[in-house]
Amino acid sequence: MSDYQHPYRDAEFVLEQLVGFDALCEAAGLEGINMELANTVVEEAGKLGSGVLAPLNQDGDEKGATINAQGVQQTPGFKEAYQQMTEGGWLSLNAPEEFGGQGLPKVLSTAVNEIWHSANMAFALCPLLSQGAIEALAHHGSDDLKNTYLPKLISGEWTGTMNLTEPDAGSDLAAVKSKAVPDGDAYRISGTKIFITWGDHQMTENIIHLVLARLPDAPAGVKGISLFIVPKFLLDDNGQTTTERNTASALSLEHKLGIHGSPTCVMEFESSLGYLVGEPHQGLKYMFTMMNDARQGVGVQGLSVSERAYQLARQYAKDRIQGTLRDGSRIAIIEHPDVRRMLMTIKSTTEAMRALAFMASAELDRARLVGGDDAAAHMARAELYTPIVKGWCTELSVELTSLAVQIHGGMGFIEETGAAQHYRDARILPIYEGTTAIQALDLIGRKTLSNGGAVLDGLLAEMDATAASARNATVLPEAALAQFDAALATARQSRDFILANARVDAHLLGSAAVNFMMQMGYVTGGWLMVQSAEKAKALLDAGQGDPEFLQAKLVTARFFCEHMMPRHQAHATALLAGSESIMGLTNEQF
Amino acid sequence: MSDYQHPYRDAEFVLEQLVGFDALCEAAGLEGINMELANTVVEEAGKLGSGVLAPLNQDGDEKGATINAQGVQQTPGFKEAYQQMTEGGWLSLNAPEEFGGQGLPKVLSTAVNEIWHSANMAFALCPLLSQGAIEALAHHGSDDLKNTYLPKLISGEWTGTMNLTEPDAGSDLAAVKSKAVPDGDAYRISGTKIFITWGDHQMTENIIHLVLARLPDAPAGVKGISLFIVPKFLLDDNGQTTTERNTASALSLEHKLGIHGSPTCVMEFESSLGYLVGEPHQGLKYMFTMMNDARQGVGVQGLSVSERAYQLARQYAKDRIQGTLRDGSRIAIIEHPDVRRMLMTIKSTTEAMRALAFMASAELDRARLVGGDDAAAHMARAELYTPIVKGWCTELSVELTSLAVQIHGGMGFIEETGAAQHYRDARILPIYEGTTAIQALDLIGRKTLSNGGAVLDGLLAEMDATAASARNATVLPEAALAQFDAALATARQSRDFILANARVDAHLLGSAAVNFMMQMGYVTGGWLMVQSAEKAKALLDAGQGDPEFLQAKLVTARFFCEHMMPRHQAHATALLAGSESIMGLTNEQF
Repeated sequence: MSDYQHPYRDAEFVLEQLVGFDALCEAAGLEGINMELANTVVEEAGKLGSGVLAPLNQDGDEKGATINAQGVQQTPGFKEAYQQMTEGGWLSLNAPEEFGGQGLPKVLSTAVNEIWHSANMAFALCPLLSQGAIEALAHHGSDDLKNTYLPKLISGEWTGTMNLTEPDAGSDLAAVKSKAVPDGDAYRISGTKIFITWGDHQMTENIIHLVLARLPDAPAGVKGISLFIVPKFLLDDNGQTTTERNTASALSLEHKLGIHGSPTCVMEFESSLGYLVGEPHQGLKYMFTMMNDARQGVGVQGLSVSERAYQLARQYAKDRIQGTLRDGSRIAIIEHPDVRRMLMTIKSTTEAMRALAFMASAELDRARLVGGDDAAAHMARAELYTPIVKGWCTELSVELTSLAVQIHGGMGFIEETGAAQHYRDARILPIYEGTTAIQALDLIGRKTLSNGGAVLDGLLAEMDATAASARNATVLPEAALAQFDAALATARQSRDFILANARVDAHLLGSAAVNFMMQMGYVTGGWLMVQSAEKAKALLDAGQGDPEFLQAKLVTARFFCEHMMPRHQAHATALLAGSESIMGLTNEQF
Repeated sequence: MSDYQHPYRDAEFVLEQLVGFDALCEAAGLEGINMELANTVVEEAGKLGSGVLAPLNQDGDEKGATINAQGVQQTPGFKEAYQQMTEGGWLSLNAPEEFGGQGLPKVLSTAVNEIWHSANMAFALCPLLSQGAIEALAHHGSDDLKNTYLPKLISGEWTGTMNLTEPDAGSDLAAVKSKAVPDGDAYRISGTKIFITWGDHQMTENIIHLVLARLPDAPAGVKGISLFIVPKFLLDDNGQTTTERNTASALSLEHKLGIHGSPTCVMEFESSLGYLVGEPHQGLKYMFTMMNDARQGVGVQGLSVSERAYQLARQYAKDRIQGTLRDGSRIAIIEHPDVRRMLMTIKSTTEAMRALAFMASAELDRARLVGGDDAAAHMARAELYTPIVKGWCTELSVELTSLAVQIHGGMGFIEETGAAQHYRDARILPIYEGTTAIQALDLIGRKTLSNGGAVLDGLLAEMDATAASARNATVLPEAALAQFDAALATARQSRDFILANARVDAHLLGSAAVNFMMQMGYVTGGWLMVQSAEKAKALLDAGQGDPEFLQAKLVTARFFCEHMMPRHQAHATALLAGSESIMGLTNEQF
């Protein structure tokens, strides 16, 4: 196992050169928050990640969570690591200041989250879920609920969970059956929830479950789902001290392909005492307000696990001697061009993912923190990015962690090597928090078709500008830039085809969605890599920065344009073929 | 878990329509061997696969092989299943008749092997390795060795293993260090071998290890490696009865990502008694003579595990209710276009793999059984196919088993569902028996560059003919056939680029190899799918066969042309970009 070291210079490059972190903070009126602070925060997080969380990653895999009569028992060592995180104030970075948060920009907490998920994805899911609960409460809870629950969720003294899925209600939440019956000012919640991440553990004195359920008078479908808070332990009258145990409990744990350190619970609510969040029947709408954050968060996991797998494979490639030169000297496998091709694939794509994930987070900041006339446009852009961040980054994380296994040859298949764990862990990412198909339908439907492609057009226009300026500055060889032009052209072709045919062919959106999303991922990733190259070249030309580091950015950008971006064509071709061959068989012919 | 059922009609279609099994048998003078017999053999194998091997597949995963003082203990039930296979004569299908084999064509045993590996890949590795040992002995052993070892290996009373890899000698076998010292007529073998599949077990009374080692006077490198037989139990003087235990033994088992039912042993040879196979220093050459069979065999595993994963996903897609139509009726997820897209991807690609694997086997038959003036050409074609069968089918099996997980949504990540096992099992396939890079280097170097592209040209010319005839008969929509034309054009473009630049750019072959191999895989798979469509259309036009089945062939061929074949473009673009961006970073810049 190699040690994990956060690639802080890559994060800094994206924050400074692509996001424009200083300008963002200034526009948002965040005094004293700038690149210097960001670098300090990221560096400190990197130390905690490398020193505390990363060494527990394989432990979590081998000694996953267990369940007994006292509830779910987390991996040994996790509780102490969690305490270090809370003591360092790491869980409150971008939470609201009035409840004890630090009010930092989202993009900075995204940079930090990359570290937690690289270091220990299974562990880091626990604070990720808390973050979701915090946002739901902060946006939709009454003052009373906020005052009672937010401070301890934000400090990390308590953790939060999201209870959405039921055995018959997965992607289709309209089928939720859990019930909530009024009981005085409160409610009694009953039902079974599955796939509940960190649904129980012993790391904190309380766990705050957010639960979707139906009131007795609720309409059918998605418009009859309400959101409730159900604490594991009830509180005394002043809402500060935990008293008796609520009836919400973990029945069993799933036996999973990966993220063994993260307990995935079947939760049983039996007339559990709960409190309504916001208005009745608005639960699904409330979930949607957190969706950009949650989905982008999972996209970051895709980045993180790919970066971790890359570091492991890179170390192996440098250490493993195999093959002989003509002069008889033996060489490490990193000298073999195909190993280098695989490493470049992971490295360049991970850089593109990081750029995309940070840019998407920054758009949320521009919408929320900067505000003003452009806020709606920034939110629309963020919402356009979200399904790409989630869908594209996580799909690619499966491929990239697989390449990291391949670089190890036979050793990659041996569990002790560690590469297999990343490959197994990554496989959940295109599934949870909305499958790839759900992301793709969101992108092609709500984010494109419903606005006539206008939001996408805005993005494509910015890409045009980059293509032109990159060509003027000859930042990359012409052939590499031609790939970007080609990707832009097919992006428009696909958009036009969708807009023209979606209402004619009822199966088109569903048939085309994933290819559309992947295509947009490659062109957007490529765009950001070309921008990286522009910035790197400008710095090099100005004699600023570390030339070795900046030169490498030119190479990874070129590689991405030559090796990854050309995939747009296959996705576009499949998309333009329409739905006929997809829908051509009867069920019996499968 | 769904039950596995061999898709016998698909196998029959390939054997009859693409391979031309009857004509092959007639040309080879194999009396009484024809499609009717083949169907019977395949059907019976299917019963054994479904009824006996498939139910043990998950057992093998959960109760994998263990090791104790008595040696390696296989999964409970495996021994009895193995006995049923030997009693049915299943292990001797294409072994030489003079030693008790049945002398059937290779392509028929390939059709049968598909079944074993779909039913239980970890288990079926044991007879697959025996097959390799049988071939090595049959081709290179003395009469004495053949008479002593072949009959019981062929009957399955004994199993065989291949001991090549050492800790410092993986892809680079030149680094083999194991030693062989003469001891009378025999040798004493010493060394450590790793990754030895089925290196020990208790299913048979003896195990025959084939071991690569160096004689004392051996030259360095690949030209100093000899091949030895080292039996687990020594034989009495008439070579029939096992006597004392040889010193060859399994030291430990690897803890692997998948194929838990297959014991992967570290083998220790300590002055173990062994016998030289053939001439000294020819070991690696002998290994190469078996390579087509062994590598094609692993390619078939890619087909098999994809087919098994497909059947599981198909069943889930038909059973799982999720989503509601406008009329309020709930639907199974197979009605969702994206689920259908994923199922079509697995189904059509698995059909292409099957066609390719069978065609490649049949070329070995044409070279060996038919002989005559064309034998060399058929062998050259078989050798061209081999790295594509191995490299392309196994790379795709990782993607297809991953899609089968995805179709299951959250349930795919739960081990009990069974989809995750196929995904884990498949991951070894692009690694063992020569990694994807090794296959690709073989294709681009020995199989293409070394003959100036002539063998590939022969194949591409046949593809031209198919493209023309398919267009004449309008078997598929013009746009689908245009994809085939485009794939053919880029295949030639890549070939020309390689031939023109390989000697100029020392890094080109290594940089381009995997993209070249994948590109050739898509165009060859597409070619066979277009041929399938031609045959299906001809039968439909003639009013022959089952129209539902044949109509489906037209749809899967079209889907493959529209969705899978277009990937040729991305591979070609990356290939044509050359080696600069791949080799552009220093080791320190990674």
